[in-house]
Amino acid sequence: MSEKMKQIEEWLKKQEGRFAYIADPTNVFYLTHFKCDPHERFLGLFLFPEDEPFLICPELEVGQARSSDFGHEVIGYRDDQNPWDFVKKALAARRTDFNNVFIEPSTLPYNKALALKEIAETITFQSIENYLASMRNIKDATELAAMKKAGEIADYAVKLGVEAIKKGRTEAAIVAEIEHELAKQGYSQMAFDTMVLAGDNTANPHGYPGTRQIHEGDFVLFDLGVVIDGYCSDITRTVCFKHASDEQHKIYETTLQANLAAIKAVHEGLRIGDLDGVARKVITDAGYGEYFTHRLGHGLGLGEHEQPSMSADNNQTLKPGMVFTVEPGIYVPEVGGVRIEDDIYLSENGALTLTHYPKELQIID
Amino acid sequence: MSEKMKQIEEWLKKQEGRFAYIADPTNVFYLTHFKCDPHERFLGLFLFPEDEPFLICPELEVGQARSSDFGHEVIGYRDDQNPWDFVKKALAARRTDFNNVFIEPSTLPYNKALALKEIAETITFQSIENYLASMRNIKDATELAAMKKAGEIADYAVKLGVEAIKKGRTEAAIVAEIEHELAKQGYSQMAFDTMVLAGDNTANPHGYPGTRQIHEGDFVLFDLGVVIDGYCSDITRTVCFKHASDEQHKIYETTLQANLAAIKAVHEGLRIGDLDGVARKVITDAGYGEYFTHRLGHGLGLGEHEQPSMSADNNQTLKPGMVFTVEPGIYVPEVGGVRIEDDIYLSENGALTLTHYPKELQIID
Repeated sequence: MSEKMKQIEEWLKKQEGRFAYIADPTNVFYLTHFKCDPHERFLGLFLFPEDEPFLICPELEVGQARSSDFGHEVIGYRDDQNPWDFVKKALAARRTDFNNVFIEPSTLPYNKALALKEIAETITFQSIENYLASMRNIKDATELAAMKKAGEIADYAVKLGVEAIKKGRTEAAIVAEIEHELAKQGYSQMAFDTMVLAGDNTANPHGYPGTRQIHEGDFVLFDLGVVIDGYCSDITRTVCFKHASDEQHKIYETTLQANLAAIKAVHEGLRIGDLDGVARKVITDAGYGEYFTHRLGHGLGLGEHEQPSMSADNNQTLKPGMVFTVEPGIYVPEVGGVRIEDDIYLSENGALTLTHYPKELQIID
Repeated sequence: MSEKMKQIEEWLKKQEGRFAYIADPTNVFYLTHFKCDPHERFLGLFLFPEDEPFLICPELEVGQARSSDFGHEVIGYRDDQNPWDFVKKALAARRTDFNNVFIEPSTLPYNKALALKEIAETITFQSIENYLASMRNIKDATELAAMKKAGEIADYAVKLGVEAIKKGRTEAAIVAEIEHELAKQGYSQMAFDTMVLAGDNTANPHGYPGTRQIHEGDFVLFDLGVVIDGYCSDITRTVCFKHASDEQHKIYETTLQANLAAIKAVHEGLRIGDLDGVARKVITDAGYGEYFTHRLGHGLGLGEHEQPSMSADNNQTLKPGMVFTVEPGIYVPEVGGVRIEDDIYLSENGALTLTHYPKELQIID
């Protein structure tokens, strides 16, 4: 059994929890290294304070589940079988009570909670999500190694993108170029849809790359990440094509100072909301406060967005082992937008940046 | 207001439903053409039998929501605001009751159902999913046009893949080649992870493309699709590299006959389970029954897998307007696997195949 599963068992004991039903494929992977995306099919990892755990998955995935770190009873079901019959039987064999059952309320579909209620009408639910998130927050050495590598490949991907900039080329063509080069080298899993935006499109922090061509004087923004051994990177860099106006220089420089100030302020025990405040103050002081329309960043790991949320209202404090993004941005309609994003690991000795692509303003010729 | 939203309103009246809370981004897009993937953030479309609908989404997406087909009250919230406060207020303004509220139980997270319960303790839930699925099942002319185009591009993608086959090339390199060529032409959204498998890997219907190189005598299997205007295609073709053994010929020919027999059998009113039976009989009669380990296919549309499930136990009947896959397969461990998959639209005048890449066995030189 993995150390992480043992940790959950210990925690369930302390909580007087009857069992935990983990359904989120990412959490299942985190605890067992069993990778399974069942789509609409059923996947369930059941952990107990004292009893033998069990895992239920589609018949086709049983082999993979058995060769994972799980090491306990794996139950497969065919498409013409009802997995809840197996859940019921396995729970009955463990003579469990149902008055304190831990689930993932923000991802578990309502009908799956109902199905458990049908097995035991008296069931009461608690959330295991915050505890799982607090475990996932703190990366161990293996996880950090994967994230360092993911950061390196993200740096390389930005380099590929910057080299692919050419007058008249479309955003979509540059996305294709980056992903093609990465895939040729075996890095085919992106952490999310690669974003390359040009010109006025950069003013939309949620834009989609399309047929917009690159013109002289455009900002070109790259936001991308890769997945290494399940772990994500997430980097944003912005460059200018051919020349930059005074306003573009000012927007860029302000964003960069906000990024640098926030990274410099990172230390154990700092309130997360205050870190957002450090970057926001730089931008507000420069007169762009209303154009920094999102939080400073987010936790990073198996998910491309995970806890902690690096937002003004977050009262949690920074802890060694956390990995999170620092990504201030300024988006001025019609002029364009700049975002500069790094992945930060807080070590026992302070902040370690996992993304290294240069940050001074580049004017591409 | 879209026709589809009106249809939901009429249906709610008949069901004596108080309102419908649609949270699945695909269903929201289906009804409004507002494309929004809010990840962990809140998205909710609220429809009423008589009252004015409203839509709540992240502040950043409000502009897009307002320019969609929705045409009613759009409420944005910032990251530091609780969207449920807005839900509560908007519901209160409509003085709604809560004793018959329609949700999507198989995708709505448990905590969102709980949040509604906190607004109205007496709330009772019903499912709108089957009704929405039955609407989405029947494609209109605009949807069909997108799916025809998606089918054409899928044909082209298979052609690209077959042309990219070369001794020693890896599965992953061919995936990269296909997606690069498509992206250069503006087709960058695949319907799911493109699958290229070679040799013994083809015997795993759920395999992942990797560093397996192509050798003489390999089956090479392509399973891919693209998204056009939100709508998916899904095609599978299998070819041989250099030469094929007698057993490979037999497996291929059997799969092809199963594919052709099923497509020929498609007609309005046919029980879907019986269509699975038509293909399965061909394969069983040839002695490969145990190696056809999955259902015949699945519905296709905005989702790459949607209702109806084309499985033996489905008692629904085929209706004009449905689009579904027909994808029999035979997977013989160590020898390899063949799957031949087409997308079928049932018109008023019979089956129309949306995928056209040739199906006779190709031996690639």
